[in-house]
Amino acid sequence: MRVLGIDPGSRVTGFGVVQVLRNGRLQYVTSGCIRTPPGALADRLKSIYDGVNEIIASFQPTVFAAERVFVARNADSALKLGQARGAAICAGINRGLEVNEYSATEIKSAIVGRGRADKRQIQHMVRVLLELDGSPSADAADALACAICHAHQTAGRLAFRRGLGRRVIERGVA
Amino acid sequence: MRVLGIDPGSRVTGFGVVQVLRNGRLQYVTSGCIRTPPGALADRLKSIYDGVNEIIASFQPTVFAAERVFVARNADSALKLGQARGAAICAGINRGLEVNEYSATEIKSAIVGRGRADKRQIQHMVRVLLELDGSPSADAADALACAICHAHQTAGRLAFRRGLGRRVIERGVA
Repeated sequence: MRVLGIDPGSRVTGFGVVQVLRNGRLQYVTSGCIRTPPGALADRLKSIYDGVNEIIASFQPTVFAAERVFVARNADSALKLGQARGAAICAGINRGLEVNEYSATEIKSAIVGRGRADKRQIQHMVRVLLELDGSPSADAADALACAICHAHQTAGRLAFRRGLGRRVIERGVA
Repeated sequence: MRVLGIDPGSRVTGFGVVQVLRNGRLQYVTSGCIRTPPGALADRLKSIYDGVNEIIASFQPTVFAAERVFVARNADSALKLGQARGAAICAGINRGLEVNEYSATEIKSAIVGRGRADKRQIQHMVRVLLELDGSPSADAADALACAICHAHQTAGRLAFRRGLGRRVIERGVA
């Protein structure tokens, strides 16, 4: 299973691809950010759609995971975020990927073992879990965290329920 | 020029296609609603994307017009609306259509000659302007109004500036 995690935003969309190996270990494939140019809405959505589409074409993930959004700062930013999410998710759908959403709490639990964690903790733990030499950017780390969460939820559900979430991921998921 | 007007929503997306004839008159082509099934976000966005895509394939519009949204009721509905807009606009972009946005005030001015009008006035005037036998549904009327506004803005700009907006549309745009 190869998971594409996406953290969409109207200005920056983070992405991260994680491979779940046969032995259950997680392997980092790629990550980064799609920076949306200022300008007309159509151009901005196109850059997100085309960017996600290119990542899927290049790295062939089999599954798509994004953070489920409950609260946005205000209606204007929610609309912009929604449009970016719509574009990113459509790129996944049109490539035939299964789309999964996880709440922030589920993602944080999968990464740091509890539902509360700040950006730096997420960055740090993503680095540790994927054995990276350096920290990914905050947006890329959030996207990788989504991907790890999906790998975890689908493969390590039982172990996670026993409260071994973090250890299971560090060892790799079964 | 053939204009596809879209009024996206998380539950119902209205659409309307209007042909601008050589003599400047407006001709009704089609209109209706894409009803989004309840269920997973990906399925809902797919129904909007595929629906708009099908309309474009069937009726071959050359241009895409949607209402620019400034204010939504709250952040949650703005996010849902944004996602629906993102999906609808991506379908237009991916078919190579130019995407245009108009404010509610611009659309109402183009239809009823001033920036304030209720849904029923819009439905009535769309029916009159396109010489329809019956009133389109409110969502379809809003989408047709977008399409008419675009036809108007691009072709009848000068006349409109002179305050002849409504008459120009009734006569057809140059």
